[in-house]
Amino acid sequence: MSAVAIENVAYDTECVTINWANGRTNRYHHVWLRHNCPTARHKVVGEYTLDPVSIPLDIAPASAEVAANGRLHITWANDGHQSDYDPNWLYANAYEAEARDERRFRPTLWTTELLGDFLPEVQYDAVMTDDNALRDWLCLLRQYGFAIIRGVPTESEMVLKVAKRISFLRDTNFGMLFNVESMPDPNSLAYTSVKLNAHTDLVSREAQPGLQFLHCLVFDAEGGASILVDGFAVAEELRHTHPEDWQLLTTLPVRFRYQDKETDVEAKFPIIRLDADGNYFEIRYSTALLAPLDVAPEHVLPFYRAFDNFSRLLRDPRYEYKFRLQPGDCEVFDNRRVLHGRDEFNPQSGPRHLQGCYIDTDDYLSRLKVLERDGRDFRESLSIVR
Amino acid sequence: MSAVAIENVAYDTECVTINWANGRTNRYHHVWLRHNCPTARHKVVGEYTLDPVSIPLDIAPASAEVAANGRLHITWANDGHQSDYDPNWLYANAYEAEARDERRFRPTLWTTELLGDFLPEVQYDAVMTDDNALRDWLCLLRQYGFAIIRGVPTESEMVLKVAKRISFLRDTNFGMLFNVESMPDPNSLAYTSVKLNAHTDLVSREAQPGLQFLHCLVFDAEGGASILVDGFAVAEELRHTHPEDWQLLTTLPVRFRYQDKETDVEAKFPIIRLDADGNYFEIRYSTALLAPLDVAPEHVLPFYRAFDNFSRLLRDPRYEYKFRLQPGDCEVFDNRRVLHGRDEFNPQSGPRHLQGCYIDTDDYLSRLKVLERDGRDFRESLSIVR
Repeated sequence: MSAVAIENVAYDTECVTINWANGRTNRYHHVWLRHNCPTARHKVVGEYTLDPVSIPLDIAPASAEVAANGRLHITWANDGHQSDYDPNWLYANAYEAEARDERRFRPTLWTTELLGDFLPEVQYDAVMTDDNALRDWLCLLRQYGFAIIRGVPTESEMVLKVAKRISFLRDTNFGMLFNVESMPDPNSLAYTSVKLNAHTDLVSREAQPGLQFLHCLVFDAEGGASILVDGFAVAEELRHTHPEDWQLLTTLPVRFRYQDKETDVEAKFPIIRLDADGNYFEIRYSTALLAPLDVAPEHVLPFYRAFDNFSRLLRDPRYEYKFRLQPGDCEVFDNRRVLHGRDEFNPQSGPRHLQGCYIDTDDYLSRLKVLERDGRDFRESLSIVR
Repeated sequence: MSAVAIENVAYDTECVTINWANGRTNRYHHVWLRHNCPTARHKVVGEYTLDPVSIPLDIAPASAEVAANGRLHITWANDGHQSDYDPNWLYANAYEAEARDERRFRPTLWTTELLGDFLPEVQYDAVMTDDNALRDWLCLLRQYGFAIIRGVPTESEMVLKVAKRISFLRDTNFGMLFNVESMPDPNSLAYTSVKLNAHTDLVSREAQPGLQFLHCLVFDAEGGASILVDGFAVAEELRHTHPEDWQLLTTLPVRFRYQDKETDVEAKFPIIRLDADGNYFEIRYSTALLAPLDVAPEHVLPFYRAFDNFSRLLRDPRYEYKFRLQPGDCEVFDNRRVLHGRDEFNPQSGPRHLQGCYIDTDDYLSRLKVLERDGRDFRESLSIVR
């Protein structure tokens, strides 16, 4: 955001009103301003040391004016405290609906047709050595929900090295590293050779892992094509074609459960979760790990109907991006947005061996935000006086 | 649950109705029953292999009867498939409101007065060697939200050993193990000597960690008493004394943010979160890590007012369980229910050194559920025919 200037400032009993030189007007509540006085934060750590409880709710300025250096200067009537605000910080933190909406991230929803010939892909050497390539990769992940890395050495545990380039790993009951291959004594359908409909992983955990990494080491088997589906795009079609189903799936929490000898985890959330502003937050979908439905009886049939309709859309070829991983490819996807699956394969025809791991959404977005600082001290964005 | 017997069975176009010998009646939708046929699951893994999409929504029995062995036997009209159900499983999975409510876990909310002389505490030697003691400890944690372990050897990293007795650890940007002591170059107020109001940890992460472990290695400093507060009990008082504030805090998502040189994470959730059934799900509270409020302007003043009232209650001595950790004590608490704090201490008067770590709620509850199986094969509870 380019620097903005305050044209003039006024206040009433509740708010300070700023008219900006670019024509925008924003209002800031007195209590909000006092709470966000730069002196309210620890100068080193950056956390608030000012207790909001100590601020009188009817606090008001004795004066509010634009200083010669362009900053907003307020003297508070109750105790004479002086506050001094960076206009860029005020502009960036305005909270009228329009300002909040401007800050909202908008992912690019896709169908196979919309993807066309464009495939989000990056090169291993670049992302491992160049911070700009790393940032570009993370931007692709945030925008499209997936990206394929080419040229990853086909050595065991390289997938951990790739993931740790972003952040620390998310551990689960399947371990920090999991091997996806047909096993004699599986504890998950993933470790058989059956077809897996597109799904999200670890639906029975409260926090589904964010990014999933699947690195192809060996793939000589017949079948076993990979499938990726943009769950947000499919949910959006459901919203238009089956609004009642969409309504139910976005509000009715249903239970998922995973059990094996060592583990018994369950979670109960809507299949399609929205955030408070109505944006898509995550998809939680697995036919294998649904628990017996325990919802109010009147929701049982509507749920099965809605689940059917959503499932049919998820499996529509218009949404299924299908491809064959090659040894050295690592598919990386936002597990909570882009569902993944695979065709059945024939384990007698040859081996298929992937290695996988997870990191959480918080941590990949954190890494991206830190890279986007371009070396600036984080305390600058907190507007701490120094 | 003791074995239950089916008295008689009937069906209409939508449901099978079971009258139980103990007088209870439950209804099960046909589609629900077909989906939960024991043959619908993989016999080894236990996951569903039956795709719910393949079940006609108007499916109905050709016959439904109690077999000589007491099991419910259904022949389906559409394809002649035979389903055979364990009555105990059906009883346990009934989904009328009353049955669902019976399965709900009810924590014991506490004030310092209610706790009285009772302190949830366990002995290190017992929980480390005896699975029954481990189970009792986890039950205390689930019921009261905290328990203190006595007699933990005062050696570095013992806290990891204690936590791993339950499950694998939750990693964060502060590392698997964190040292709580006054540091010269802190990246959190926790690592200074200032008073910390009772709060939950990692509010700026989407998933606040579940259990927190704080092991006291050395404590010679003056001050620094530990504080624990049952956030659910306080929320419940707020609901009665300030219903409008409670309403706002349970529905209005507010943003928390943590930043340092390496990290930038934020999360936006209500301060008091309820689950879909209206039970307390978690508290997310920190005065230090609130981000500048970005809610609709009409919510700003009501939020500050509600936050004030909730904060005052959280700091009421009726709720503050205050005690001084001794070297060898490890306090363990549900970070999402029981808020923790500490009084200011004087780092010049002597050292205070705690070591801490986290594990997630999913994983401590999983461990408890597996212990409660009492050695039974998990597939029994899935009612898989063998």
